[in-house]
Amino acid sequence: MRNENRLRWWIWFIVLLATLFFLGFIIGWFAKQTHENTASNGVSSKYLREFLDEMQPNQIREYLRKFTRLPHLAGTEQNLKYAEEIKKDWQDFGLDSVEMAPYDVLLSYPNTSQPNYISIVDQFGNEVFNTSLAEPVPQGYEDVSNIVPPYSAFSAKGQPEGDLVYVNYGRTEDFFQLEREMNISATGKIVIVRYGKIFRGNKVKNAVLAGAKGIIMFSDPADYWASGVQLYPDGWNLPGGGVQRGNVLNLNGAGDPLTPGYPAKEYTHRFSVEDGVGLPKIPVHPIGFDDAIHLLKNMGGQIPPNSWKGSLNVSYRIGPGFTHEFKSQKVRMNIHTNNKVTRIYNVIGRIRGALEPDRYVILGGHRDAWVFGGIDPMSGAAVVHEIVRSAGRLLSEGWRPRRTIIFASWDAEEFGLLGSTEWAEDNAKLLQERAVAYINADSAIEGTYTLRVDCTPSLHTLVYEVTKKIDSPEEGEEGLSLYESWHKRDNWTQDRDAPRISKLSSGSDFEAYFIRLGIAAGRARYTKNKKTELYSSYPLYHSVYETFEIVEKFYDPSFRRLKAVSQVRGGLIFLLADSQLLPLDANQYADSLRKYTQSIAQLAQRHPAQMEMYEVSFDFLFSAAENFTVAAREFHERLQTLNRADPLQVRIMNDQLMYLERTFIDPLGLPGRPFYRHVIFAPSSHNKYAGESFPGIYDALFDIENSADPEKAWEEVKRQISIAAFTVHAAAMTLTPPA
Amino acid sequence: MRNENRLRWWIWFIVLLATLFFLGFIIGWFAKQTHENTASNGVSSKYLREFLDEMQPNQIREYLRKFTRLPHLAGTEQNLKYAEEIKKDWQDFGLDSVEMAPYDVLLSYPNTSQPNYISIVDQFGNEVFNTSLAEPVPQGYEDVSNIVPPYSAFSAKGQPEGDLVYVNYGRTEDFFQLEREMNISATGKIVIVRYGKIFRGNKVKNAVLAGAKGIIMFSDPADYWASGVQLYPDGWNLPGGGVQRGNVLNLNGAGDPLTPGYPAKEYTHRFSVEDGVGLPKIPVHPIGFDDAIHLLKNMGGQIPPNSWKGSLNVSYRIGPGFTHEFKSQKVRMNIHTNNKVTRIYNVIGRIRGALEPDRYVILGGHRDAWVFGGIDPMSGAAVVHEIVRSAGRLLSEGWRPRRTIIFASWDAEEFGLLGSTEWAEDNAKLLQERAVAYINADSAIEGTYTLRVDCTPSLHTLVYEVTKKIDSPEEGEEGLSLYESWHKRDNWTQDRDAPRISKLSSGSDFEAYFIRLGIAAGRARYTKNKKTELYSSYPLYHSVYETFEIVEKFYDPSFRRLKAVSQVRGGLIFLLADSQLLPLDANQYADSLRKYTQSIAQLAQRHPAQMEMYEVSFDFLFSAAENFTVAAREFHERLQTLNRADPLQVRIMNDQLMYLERTFIDPLGLPGRPFYRHVIFAPSSHNKYAGESFPGIYDALFDIENSADPEKAWEEVKRQISIAAFTVHAAAMTLTPPA
Repeated sequence: MRNENRLRWWIWFIVLLATLFFLGFIIGWFAKQTHENTASNGVSSKYLREFLDEMQPNQIREYLRKFTRLPHLAGTEQNLKYAEEIKKDWQDFGLDSVEMAPYDVLLSYPNTSQPNYISIVDQFGNEVFNTSLAEPVPQGYEDVSNIVPPYSAFSAKGQPEGDLVYVNYGRTEDFFQLEREMNISATGKIVIVRYGKIFRGNKVKNAVLAGAKGIIMFSDPADYWASGVQLYPDGWNLPGGGVQRGNVLNLNGAGDPLTPGYPAKEYTHRFSVEDGVGLPKIPVHPIGFDDAIHLLKNMGGQIPPNSWKGSLNVSYRIGPGFTHEFKSQKVRMNIHTNNKVTRIYNVIGRIRGALEPDRYVILGGHRDAWVFGGIDPMSGAAVVHEIVRSAGRLLSEGWRPRRTIIFASWDAEEFGLLGSTEWAEDNAKLLQERAVAYINADSAIEGTYTLRVDCTPSLHTLVYEVTKKIDSPEEGEEGLSLYESWHKRDNWTQDRDAPRISKLSSGSDFEAYFIRLGIAAGRARYTKNKKTELYSSYPLYHSVYETFEIVEKFYDPSFRRLKAVSQVRGGLIFLLADSQLLPLDANQYADSLRKYTQSIAQLAQRHPAQMEMYEVSFDFLFSAAENFTVAAREFHERLQTLNRADPLQVRIMNDQLMYLERTFIDPLGLPGRPFYRHVIFAPSSHNKYAGESFPGIYDALFDIENSADPEKAWEEVKRQISIAAFTVHAAAMTLTPPA
Repeated sequence: MRNENRLRWWIWFIVLLATLFFLGFIIGWFAKQTHENTASNGVSSKYLREFLDEMQPNQIREYLRKFTRLPHLAGTEQNLKYAEEIKKDWQDFGLDSVEMAPYDVLLSYPNTSQPNYISIVDQFGNEVFNTSLAEPVPQGYEDVSNIVPPYSAFSAKGQPEGDLVYVNYGRTEDFFQLEREMNISATGKIVIVRYGKIFRGNKVKNAVLAGAKGIIMFSDPADYWASGVQLYPDGWNLPGGGVQRGNVLNLNGAGDPLTPGYPAKEYTHRFSVEDGVGLPKIPVHPIGFDDAIHLLKNMGGQIPPNSWKGSLNVSYRIGPGFTHEFKSQKVRMNIHTNNKVTRIYNVIGRIRGALEPDRYVILGGHRDAWVFGGIDPMSGAAVVHEIVRSAGRLLSEGWRPRRTIIFASWDAEEFGLLGSTEWAEDNAKLLQERAVAYINADSAIEGTYTLRVDCTPSLHTLVYEVTKKIDSPEEGEEGLSLYESWHKRDNWTQDRDAPRISKLSSGSDFEAYFIRLGIAAGRARYTKNKKTELYSSYPLYHSVYETFEIVEKFYDPSFRRLKAVSQVRGGLIFLLADSQLLPLDANQYADSLRKYTQSIAQLAQRHPAQMEMYEVSFDFLFSAAENFTVAAREFHERLQTLNRADPLQVRIMNDQLMYLERTFIDPLGLPGRPFYRHVIFAPSSHNKYAGESFPGIYDALFDIENSADPEKAWEEVKRQISIAAFTVHAAAMTLTPPA
């Protein structure tokens, strides 16, 4: 009995020891750092909520107020002052580092002693009418100096004199109609066109190609009035004295015209201005409609078709020149604008990534404005400021994202995306290897209707996920998410039941990142109702009337819409930087590619006889898209079974996702556009604002219409189809298991 | 007392429990897989030794014998048969996968019914002399069919007739001398030049630029005889009937002339031959010196300088045309060579990496030969075969490298590096993101003296490390390492005490990988004594006499030199694939860059007055190289303290090393050479075989001499300096901590 007890005691004792050992083993096992926080997505989601909730309408209002008091054109002292304030604020908010990134780029300013204007001159050369030298200054800003008068940046200097020809919007098709149907030549004439529909630089290029010796652009109320809205200051419609400024370059992504391909630094070789990229060779000038009426009202020549008529009380005759009575009058442009190499300043802030400091998520938007920049760009810059503040707040609580986040305040966007492009050129080698995504932050609002998102297909899913976590900013929609509010206003009716997301085109700072470097990119802002509000951009765009007040009074009195945009932009960079698996969706890219192949093939099918004659087939492009679809699906299936505790396996699949966008880059560029290298997305050659899918094929098909040698033109179509098929095949390969 | 005992007992008990718990904890801690085998370098070194020791001279002999029995020109059935045998062997050796990678590229063959030859014709048009249609067939190969007669691949067709002009080696400087000093024009003439000094394609290009209507190339004994060596078959000197075949393209890295930039696949668009890249527009033909004597002996005109004289018993007069007595005789070329799109086959074998399957180390060399390929390329292919066998052996013993190894047997190297370039184009997107290094395996022996290595600077250290582990193959050097043997024969005297390593130029399959894609690359072979053996390449180069026997009898009877080359090439890929930290040395790159900046600046200093006048300075390039030096040093210091148990930190620094070579790539390419993209290394525009550092600056300086507009020429020099400075600065940035 005693022995039995003893035995029992020993058994218990050994069990205890074994249990303790086992306990120790288990604790030891789990205590060991594997450098992969598998619970990190859970932790992230707490921080994400906190991050989104931190953003405040009042803060955004305060920042917008602070940075719109004074004009801050690129290259001016005031814009440097704002850069320094932003730098200081970002440091105070708690970023790990903030630095200036200066470049010396070609800018363009009116001559301060010789104003630009347009005259009607009589037969003796007397100026019988002159356009105004400036816009009437808005109320409250009467004492402000340094408001740059309306001008076309990078216009050639000169005083051409001649007859006017009116060419509608100045599009390629307008010039074709002028020359082929109306039999009017613009050679040696001064062309007058209305703003809208396409990027103004394309209008200028078309005028040059047509042989014009000058070009005047005006804002027609048909394109710059919203119905039922008062003129500024009582509403947000464009008054007759308001004018749209803007650059008239055709850079095609080159950045600084004198240093294409390389950052404009101290040691950088500069081309002469004559050899610079994209500079127009003729004088260009913008006017408002009060002045336009004077130039248009006495024009002679043909009555145009209705599609050429705006809503001014004039006949919109084509010319050339004035009617009989005024035949002896000519138009003279007086343009004295100077090009000047000028220092600009980007502000670059960083949060160092905890686990993958060599993976970059970028949020960038410009700071320079034509005048006050109430909407463009400071509504966006205020939002970025609030995002940086909120991120700093999280940092102070111990949060640190898995990957590095880079915040950028770009300079000289208005002069051709110069600040962002020079920085991209300067850092191209790092970005190519390390950039995960670029989110753009230009104007955060251009209407009061709903959200607008343009992004690469692989971001679609993330955009939906983020917008579902955000409240609708609209009154009466309490309890509705931004996603739901957006969905009900702008459904992607054609082929899917979800909020519409559009392709990226160009016209803002994402260009170099997306179209040149192949970094997944997107942009988000609040917008108008595209179905009912048919005016171009927003009426006061690039005028002196783009003030703090138009946002506060008309666009977003509660600043809740801007807060929602903050949350979208901020939520995107948060999840891109902090998710263990990159939230990029190759399946969405596959869906889009299949859709694009169909629509480009349909475009070609407008010429069925020639398609057959020249043996043009899209079959290989179709099969490439199918290939890609299978590869994407299988990739995401493998992702489901990935061992997320293995940091190398996670990194390998994340790399495949990160580099997916890069695989669409062709280092040879699109034909004649060496800096547009994205085979899937780039602007049409005929309109920088029109993002096309398969732009190489699109442009080649466009050229079919006016080629003297159709066989050669169709060869080029076939070549472009072959390049597209290769690119999509190659992209599919990158999604298969790596060895 | 009893209580005391009891207390003591409890204390012991608790200590025991705590100890056991602690033991369990410790064991649990260490039992946990961290997916980083920190001991792997130790394991590697055992396997490395086994790998090197596995390689056998007799195996290499057997493989060389097996693959040199029959002619196997690219595009022929026999070359496909060898491909299939190689594929089967590699599968049997145990590779994870082996596949064919076919492409349809432009090749060029003599017309089988109309032979190519050159005639001397009398005034009646009668052919009074014709060059031979074939080389005398070597002993033992009399019954072999399909020996392609000597020809210049991609020659234009035609039968030009005219006077000869002799232009020495046909270099740029030879044509300058002809035109400027001798005042002789080659326009409308048939040019005759000797082989040697520069790539034959450059000779042809120069003849075309000079306006010649045909070009004949001959091998002069001065350039193709080693002293004291017998003619084949008694030795390895070139007999009078032997002729050097070769392509005469100027591809500048384009690959298939009809599909530049894209793989030549079923769906790929092809340019017409007229629009193809690099095809000469005039007939070209190669001859041996027996035939050359007949063309040269009666030539008239000036007596040339001694540097233009070879060692034939003729006067080497310049012409144009024959001496008085033979004045009425002309030379007629009869060239009927056809271009033809033809299927070629690469063989691609893989060993999947255990931990980083998405990191690729490539060993590639060509298989196609002009005839038997005894040296070029089968001495190299036999070596690759032996390396694959040895790697398979290791696999069967449980070894698996950390990274993926890719073995390639390229096709159509002789036609312009076509197989390797098409595969590089096909896989460019994968290679850009994933390739660690490319080791080339063309001819493994071209002399009997010592090792020759050309490689990127970051591989210098590894090459030394590997050669120290290999025995010298030379008789009487038992106990000496290959490194020591090499060092004593070819010391890098000028500035360092180590075996000489040279820059990579072009002329073999590494080109697309190194110069277009920026993948660290190198090549190794056994070579002649460059100081005493002054002939060009090796005498029997590209002739029918390049047989198995010349290797077995003269170059490497014991096959120990080829074994040593196996071990070098194999050792390099082993350590690149299996070392935890990539064995790439940024400090060596820094040293080289500083040296290159000095020498290019010295080259410019030949024009001190113009340097001052045009304000040409190398200061920014110097400071960029200094910058790079600091960044490299600090990088390697951080590498010392890296936590090698952290797989992400290891991967991050390895990525910096892997991408270092990539940072020297400029997507815009060198001027006029879009596929030569490496800013530090590329061939001179005047000789594909001359690897230059800072080739953009080098070429721009070359052009100074003959530019009509020196200001413009110096602007280009300045532009190139600025691009180089930017590139080196940017490369330095990639070595700094990533955030």
